[in-house]
Amino acid sequence: MATSEAKSTRSNVQLKTPKGTRDWVGPDLVLREHIFRTVSDVFKRHGGTPLDTPVFELRGILTEKYGEDSRLIYDLEDQGGELCSLRYDLTVPFARWLAMNTNITQIKRYQIAKVYRRDQPAIARGRLREFYQCDFDIAGVYDPMIPDAEVLRVIIEVFEALELEVSIKINHRQILDGLFAVAGVPDEKVRLISSAVDKLDKAPWDDVKKEMVEEKGLPEEVADRIGKYVGLNGDLRKILELLQSDETLSGNKKVQAGLKDMGLLVPYLEALDVIDKVSFDLSLARGLDYYSGVIYEVLTKPPSQYGPGAPAEAKSDGLSSQVGSIAAGGRYDNLVGMFGKRPMPCIGVSFGVDRIFTILDARRGKKAGVLTREIDVYVMAFGGKDTDGLLLERMAIARQLWNAGIRAEFAAKVKAKLPQQFKAAKDVPLAVIIGQDELADGLVRLKVLGAGDGETDEKDRGQLISKDNLVTEVKKLL
Amino acid sequence: MATSEAKSTRSNVQLKTPKGTRDWVGPDLVLREHIFRTVSDVFKRHGGTPLDTPVFELRGILTEKYGEDSRLIYDLEDQGGELCSLRYDLTVPFARWLAMNTNITQIKRYQIAKVYRRDQPAIARGRLREFYQCDFDIAGVYDPMIPDAEVLRVIIEVFEALELEVSIKINHRQILDGLFAVAGVPDEKVRLISSAVDKLDKAPWDDVKKEMVEEKGLPEEVADRIGKYVGLNGDLRKILELLQSDETLSGNKKVQAGLKDMGLLVPYLEALDVIDKVSFDLSLARGLDYYSGVIYEVLTKPPSQYGPGAPAEAKSDGLSSQVGSIAAGGRYDNLVGMFGKRPMPCIGVSFGVDRIFTILDARRGKKAGVLTREIDVYVMAFGGKDTDGLLLERMAIARQLWNAGIRAEFAAKVKAKLPQQFKAAKDVPLAVIIGQDELADGLVRLKVLGAGDGETDEKDRGQLISKDNLVTEVKKLL
Repeated sequence: MATSEAKSTRSNVQLKTPKGTRDWVGPDLVLREHIFRTVSDVFKRHGGTPLDTPVFELRGILTEKYGEDSRLIYDLEDQGGELCSLRYDLTVPFARWLAMNTNITQIKRYQIAKVYRRDQPAIARGRLREFYQCDFDIAGVYDPMIPDAEVLRVIIEVFEALELEVSIKINHRQILDGLFAVAGVPDEKVRLISSAVDKLDKAPWDDVKKEMVEEKGLPEEVADRIGKYVGLNGDLRKILELLQSDETLSGNKKVQAGLKDMGLLVPYLEALDVIDKVSFDLSLARGLDYYSGVIYEVLTKPPSQYGPGAPAEAKSDGLSSQVGSIAAGGRYDNLVGMFGKRPMPCIGVSFGVDRIFTILDARRGKKAGVLTREIDVYVMAFGGKDTDGLLLERMAIARQLWNAGIRAEFAAKVKAKLPQQFKAAKDVPLAVIIGQDELADGLVRLKVLGAGDGETDEKDRGQLISKDNLVTEVKKLL
Repeated sequence: MATSEAKSTRSNVQLKTPKGTRDWVGPDLVLREHIFRTVSDVFKRHGGTPLDTPVFELRGILTEKYGEDSRLIYDLEDQGGELCSLRYDLTVPFARWLAMNTNITQIKRYQIAKVYRRDQPAIARGRLREFYQCDFDIAGVYDPMIPDAEVLRVIIEVFEALELEVSIKINHRQILDGLFAVAGVPDEKVRLISSAVDKLDKAPWDDVKKEMVEEKGLPEEVADRIGKYVGLNGDLRKILELLQSDETLSGNKKVQAGLKDMGLLVPYLEALDVIDKVSFDLSLARGLDYYSGVIYEVLTKPPSQYGPGAPAEAKSDGLSSQVGSIAAGGRYDNLVGMFGKRPMPCIGVSFGVDRIFTILDARRGKKAGVLTREIDVYVMAFGGKDTDGLLLERMAIARQLWNAGIRAEFAAKVKAKLPQQFKAAKDVPLAVIIGQDELADGLVRLKVLGAGDGETDEKDRGQLISKDNLVTEVKKLL
């Protein structure tokens, strides 16, 4: 590399990761891996098959799937050849895969992968432009609402395994659509009004009503009729009863279909011991276009804590409420069919790993900057005046340990001083210490290192053992 | 979703993954996971710390790092904000991370992640545009050549764990650069000539010479002098001796430095039991600009099999030779310094997972289209006329098993017939069979399913046990 090039690089490059992205290392990565393993264990427990798809898709695959959010899609530059975009979620790639693989009629698939959204990032709250999703979906024709109940069960199992208390808000797209129709919303405004309603978890009713009337041109009395319904939330069975007894609503075909689904769901959620975590919430709308049935969002508090009687400390738990929903999903029976090969009903859930990470990370307390490698044995040599540092001998011992699958390290120095070697071994449980005379007799020293070991260790020279028994002796101590 | 939109999608979209990419599922994914686990176990055994970086970097980070290959970088479209490109390898992002995190003075880091190259794909040979790399690198100041020896040791351990016989071709950039200088190549043509030499593994000397002379304007006698040297390969110690005794060469400062490194390396590779897998090959050049010391490539054959005395079947092993190198790397002491914060010597290796996958996949024999979910217990019900299918009861049993961490499934049908349930359970080791009367007595049947179980199973009704003991009994049998 010519010096001039190196120089030009120096002066121009901003040394950072792109906006809304970050590096992951050390304890953060360990915690994230823990989340992945926990989540995928639950997915496997329910018969999940893993799938991996490319990070970018043909642009046309993503077109017309995300409504307003499409503007957040990252496009690849046209460098000749196909036009591609980074995946926005894992659901559309899964639907594309199902459309391509027509031999598959029923599948539970899971995928853990990064997705990309050109959104306004807020890294402290776990909102990034590159972030992981963990998706579990059930595709195929089954008896109604059985897969829906199992997906809700999967949600509960995941958060129990992560030791996070959660509640699930649930609604039904057909009930919502029917409700809008009954209230008098014209067909072409349903998605617009739906996305206004979806803001009710962040904004008060008056603001949302204002948006409907002033921005979206809805007559005020229509908005008021909507307001009456979307304020309803609480126990699934009670709200269901209330809606069933509302004659205006239940005259609508879509509402009828939705209520029938919810009625089927209740005993299934009881049998699966999920019902107490679920609350019916008619203000839940979900932004994405492709949902067609049950929809849900997971929050980090049991439902009772949101009510008027909630204790003050629950309400003031800033982080959890800032983080927003930590998992969400729903039924999307028409998405696979949009690719034109065959219809395929689907339901699924997506876990927001980075938001879950933010909450678990705050809970464990931060050990900033700790980069731990995990090593079982540190191989060191006595640094007597007449020895040459015994590097080749340390290498040979390390080789012996590596061959047995034991994690071993030695100082990458020809002549390393013993105190330095002990310092480097401070997080390591065992040390093998070699000396020239002992090695000549086929012997090495094996020493258990305690917490906070320092230079004083030089006096305790450990247990003298035969070099040939080293692996066995080390395995006994690990 | 309006019908017109769905229709427009139908007519325009090509239903495929982008060129040079593929989906991964089922046994392929299982094999790939096996490779990841094997490789990362070795990395951890050597004290590796994991790192994860974003899939795209600021474009300037990647500029002037890859020489000719830069044209293969995928750029993101300029949608306002920063200009970004997909990562081309994991080495430059690691160097960027090291430049940013100046508190880190020594680290062994590993990363397993996808990289992107707009190259001509050949999927059958494991050449893709989106492919995984597994990188292990040692950064920091140590005594010379000790990390280099350890990286070569890591390579050998990885392929031993994968049960692949390999050989490592090794060379040194400074020897190569010095050799070019001695032969009479002008400074500004060194990289050009180097990349021509790098083609010697695919093209005969005459073609490479022609490229040097006709395309790159090298005098013929200079090319001939180069040809004399780059034809040398074989036992590391022998070639080293030969070069040391060549007075023309060893008068050059760069050659001297390179030969000194290689001389140090020999006893280290002996102590680590790696020396027999390594051959010195002066034609190895490696394309990337950033290498500054030792460089190496791993091939799937022991060195002797490439020689003139190699058995015919070794030479005719088409797949392995088509796949090309399956791991490669080298020392890059100046890359981190290019970011202008501090110098940081580094050495590393990158494993080409997709090529390794192709070889291991061919070896195991393909079971096409097998999508296996792994389930421990299938919960089924007798389908007597007077029962209602016992769906809620099957759900409750599954819940009991899930709570104990057991992988369980049941038919998602209100009324499922017993033969259908046995068919669905054909890959599952255990069945729990429930009947109304037995349930009333708190009893269920537990049955071990054999290979090829079919309808006949209905006759063997399994062992009757208490429902409360189900988890214990299942765990005994798993």
